[in-house]
Amino acid sequence: MTNFSSERPGEFELIAKLFAPLAAKAPGAFGLTDDAATFRPPTGEELVMTADLLSADTHFRAKDPPELIAKKALRVNLSDLAAKGAMPRGYLLSLALPRDWTASWMAAFARGLADDQSAFSISLFGGDTTATDGPLTIAITAFGTLPEGTMIRRNGARPGDLVFVSGTVGDAGAGLAILLGTLAQGPAAEQAAVIGRYHLPTPRMALGQALRGIASAALDVSDGLLADLEHIADTSAVRIVLRAKEVPLSPAYRRLVGGEDKALVGALTAGDDYEIAFTAAPSLRNAVLQAAARTGTSISEIGRVEDGSGVAVLDSNGREIPVSRKGFRHF
Amino acid sequence: MTNFSSERPGEFELIAKLFAPLAAKAPGAFGLTDDAATFRPPTGEELVMTADLLSADTHFRAKDPPELIAKKALRVNLSDLAAKGAMPRGYLLSLALPRDWTASWMAAFARGLADDQSAFSISLFGGDTTATDGPLTIAITAFGTLPEGTMIRRNGARPGDLVFVSGTVGDAGAGLAILLGTLAQGPAAEQAAVIGRYHLPTPRMALGQALRGIASAALDVSDGLLADLEHIADTSAVRIVLRAKEVPLSPAYRRLVGGEDKALVGALTAGDDYEIAFTAAPSLRNAVLQAAARTGTSISEIGRVEDGSGVAVLDSNGREIPVSRKGFRHF
Repeated sequence: MTNFSSERPGEFELIAKLFAPLAAKAPGAFGLTDDAATFRPPTGEELVMTADLLSADTHFRAKDPPELIAKKALRVNLSDLAAKGAMPRGYLLSLALPRDWTASWMAAFARGLADDQSAFSISLFGGDTTATDGPLTIAITAFGTLPEGTMIRRNGARPGDLVFVSGTVGDAGAGLAILLGTLAQGPAAEQAAVIGRYHLPTPRMALGQALRGIASAALDVSDGLLADLEHIADTSAVRIVLRAKEVPLSPAYRRLVGGEDKALVGALTAGDDYEIAFTAAPSLRNAVLQAAARTGTSISEIGRVEDGSGVAVLDSNGREIPVSRKGFRHF
Repeated sequence: MTNFSSERPGEFELIAKLFAPLAAKAPGAFGLTDDAATFRPPTGEELVMTADLLSADTHFRAKDPPELIAKKALRVNLSDLAAKGAMPRGYLLSLALPRDWTASWMAAFARGLADDQSAFSISLFGGDTTATDGPLTIAITAFGTLPEGTMIRRNGARPGDLVFVSGTVGDAGAGLAILLGTLAQGPAAEQAAVIGRYHLPTPRMALGQALRGIASAALDVSDGLLADLEHIADTSAVRIVLRAKEVPLSPAYRRLVGGEDKALVGALTAGDDYEIAFTAAPSLRNAVLQAAARTGTSISEIGRVEDGSGVAVLDSNGREIPVSRKGFRHF
């Protein structure tokens, strides 16, 4: 890290000025004036770390509002920490900036970071900035802490466990489809709702922390609920069976896309939901419901863990709904 | 982090297979099968974190051998940890890959990482992979540990302190200049030596750790010795005066570029040296020399810290050598 002073001194000093205030509350960030930052987890806790890289036109659109790009880049990382049960603490930010970046764009980007730092009680600890001939690229490493050994893994699901998901799925995918013009326009309020979920995920920080010691496995839904549950099924060596009618679709999604099988499969494979999908023993159902209520998070019980492998979705007659390709499916 | 499984499942699974072995020795990396990794610093120690982003054609050449690209990306991060006195522990790696990457390129890249993981006793803890239409981009966050409160800062230089630098400076810059064709060719052995230093820096891990409690300020030389010493001068609110004839130039550099003022200024402003520049109280000169000897590192005493501001280079008559622009200067 050269702490945001790099090859174009004048302009990169501007960045340093915009970013240094984001590090003001973290003593170990040394005001972004050193080569590295320090952090010590509280006694009895350990660090949880995750990294995500976002590129313009792959993970967001270059013309999206800079505040939203900043928040989305931060939140996809925070969502990983949430699903693991960690309390977020801070992040390092590396930027590859197209040469036409402007001071006002950068100020808005920093404002977006500042807003979310307040919202999630985290600080910037360091990073790096460089110019690029390619698309804007944002690489974030976020870290949090939790009591040692309590991270909610992907591999703890056991046959008999219940399967849950927070919030609703499919909205962000529908929002992106509208932006791309691959989903027909609909009523303005519903459109705004799903586009908003694409632009700005809501990492389920409080729910994730409340699920420590309760959830047997968890992850955040980024690639699509089916694809992500398949990760739990694979690493836990179990089968996951979902009941189609329990999968939570928002009123906006139902209005814009529908609620029949095809719309449902779209929601299950769209991705970018950033909800938490998790499993828990049936004996802990009440604990799950209390964790959700205590943190003000809506959750749905959507299926069951069985012996076997893979993920299946059953209709109300118990017949498997065919899904041609799990995740990464476009409208 | 989606742990190296991303939008092109088949190919990205290949990456997962190549990278999972790199995480095998770190229990907290969970074999790269989870959303996040855990790490706990030893009792009494704290974490030291740094992030650097490297782009093809800005920080390395896209056609450079993939092993060397991998090692350089890792080592520029390790060099920051070295200068701070930290023992390296691990890293997270985010890659934006041009769509024409090949399995053999990626295997060589992973081999480079594996070699350096052995050399520096570190592990891969996680990361992210995505495709890009832009240049290959490598974002690394490296972390290490040291006893709490012992990080060697940039801001501790005091008037009267001595100024040191490890190894020799200017070689990497001369190597790059030869590769770019802006420095005339010279004897093959000397060329290979300086090009080698451009391709593969040697982070001074052992020296940095030995300097904890001895050096009053330190950083690694990435932007050029003068530009980097200016960071120490600025954050410590002191002036740094170098004696030109003490600045360590390698025999290869002298043969290829020369040893007179112009060549010297080139070495002081070329960058990419990844040596440690540091200050220490005169009473600790012997401790410094012992730390260097104990770690088998050559060091040079090159100047003195004074009251004032900025950095100056004096010739043997005590006259200041004019330097038009500190750092980022090409041959």
